[in-house]
Amino acid sequence: MGSQKAPDRSGFWSVPVRKSATMITVHHLNRSRSHRILWLLEELEQPYTVARYERDAKTSLAPPELLAVHPLGKSPMIELDGQVIIESAAITEVLCARFAPEMIPPAGTPDHIRHLELMHFAEGSAMTPILLQLYTGRLGDAAAPLAPRIQQQLTSQYSYMNDILRPSGHFVLDRLSAADIVLSFPAEIAMRQGRQDDFPALASFVTAMQARPAYQRALERGEVSG
Amino acid sequence: MGSQKAPDRSGFWSVPVRKSATMITVHHLNRSRSHRILWLLEELEQPYTVARYERDAKTSLAPPELLAVHPLGKSPMIELDGQVIIESAAITEVLCARFAPEMIPPAGTPDHIRHLELMHFAEGSAMTPILLQLYTGRLGDAAAPLAPRIQQQLTSQYSYMNDILRPSGHFVLDRLSAADIVLSFPAEIAMRQGRQDDFPALASFVTAMQARPAYQRALERGEVSG
Repeated sequence: MGSQKAPDRSGFWSVPVRKSATMITVHHLNRSRSHRILWLLEELEQPYTVARYERDAKTSLAPPELLAVHPLGKSPMIELDGQVIIESAAITEVLCARFAPEMIPPAGTPDHIRHLELMHFAEGSAMTPILLQLYTGRLGDAAAPLAPRIQQQLTSQYSYMNDILRPSGHFVLDRLSAADIVLSFPAEIAMRQGRQDDFPALASFVTAMQARPAYQRALERGEVSG
Repeated sequence: MGSQKAPDRSGFWSVPVRKSATMITVHHLNRSRSHRILWLLEELEQPYTVARYERDAKTSLAPPELLAVHPLGKSPMIELDGQVIIESAAITEVLCARFAPEMIPPAGTPDHIRHLELMHFAEGSAMTPILLQLYTGRLGDAAAPLAPRIQQQLTSQYSYMNDILRPSGHFVLDRLSAADIVLSFPAEIAMRQGRQDDFPALASFVTAMQARPAYQRALERGEVSG
């Protein structure tokens, strides 16, 4: 931990953390949620190492090597000063609290409640019909009875995301916040499903996030080891 | 807001909130994640009102009346001093921060990171194979190709939960914390699936939580309107 002082009660470090004192490794799986973490680290201008893993070409499953890092064997995971951290939204929360507390609204405010809702909505709700569609898609026509319900859920959640975007093009604050990072993944999937015309605000959000230099740098880092 | 003072930066109210000043309504759906919220409010000894909703007897879906409260139309939702809050884990985080900050480890500590991981794991990961099994179960034998993968995921996640339980029988602290509340739901489903012998620590956790007087009081409140 080196030069760091103990955190104060607000959850922010009481002195700026020296970049050179912090070791961050991202365990990064191709075509996965972990791009968001690389993007966030680029926004934070924090140095990090990428440990790359490839999906099985046949099954698309994560490789067993990830199990050596954590018993759940999923990406993304990071190591932060030796502590393994799982779950995209938790990783985002920890990194923002430590390196960019302005990306999280002040605790105890209505904006902070919105932040918490959306951090949980992103993976706890928005991803559910997406994963249901992905899995049941492997069953072909046999999954047809579930399709209307899954489509209704997808539309409901994309519509909600579209409607709560602020005129500034962000979800919680009028600048990049932690919720924008985590919600970018389901928003990008909506666009890959061709929903641009249905949800124009969400489409503009995705375009704006992908245009950020840090987003583009993260794409490059995800492709190159180390 | 009445007698309440503004929150300080730590997210805790700087003076004890007068119970009579706080209005909490739980929008509660039968057979759903919302029992946890009633249980938490009983643990916190906070007064609250229950607005009850019944699943459609045929489809098991939530009724459209919930859409009048929030565009996503899902339970649980609460209203806290007029602000609607969605997502079980976010609701738990908000209520604990406000009424029982000792149920959340101090920010900036390794325990707080564990807390964040598990708050997100509960809905973001643990519920995914449970919901996949629930949905694909409606397809009967046609879903058989997915069953091995879903079973492997269920076992992986239940095993993880079982293995990280502390000797005290809790997940993060050696007393009831917010993570215990949110993880109780997937843990109870594991038991309903008959996994007691596979995961004895998880079984003991469920038994201990269900034996808490507040848990039992919440069951009663969930059945009676108002």
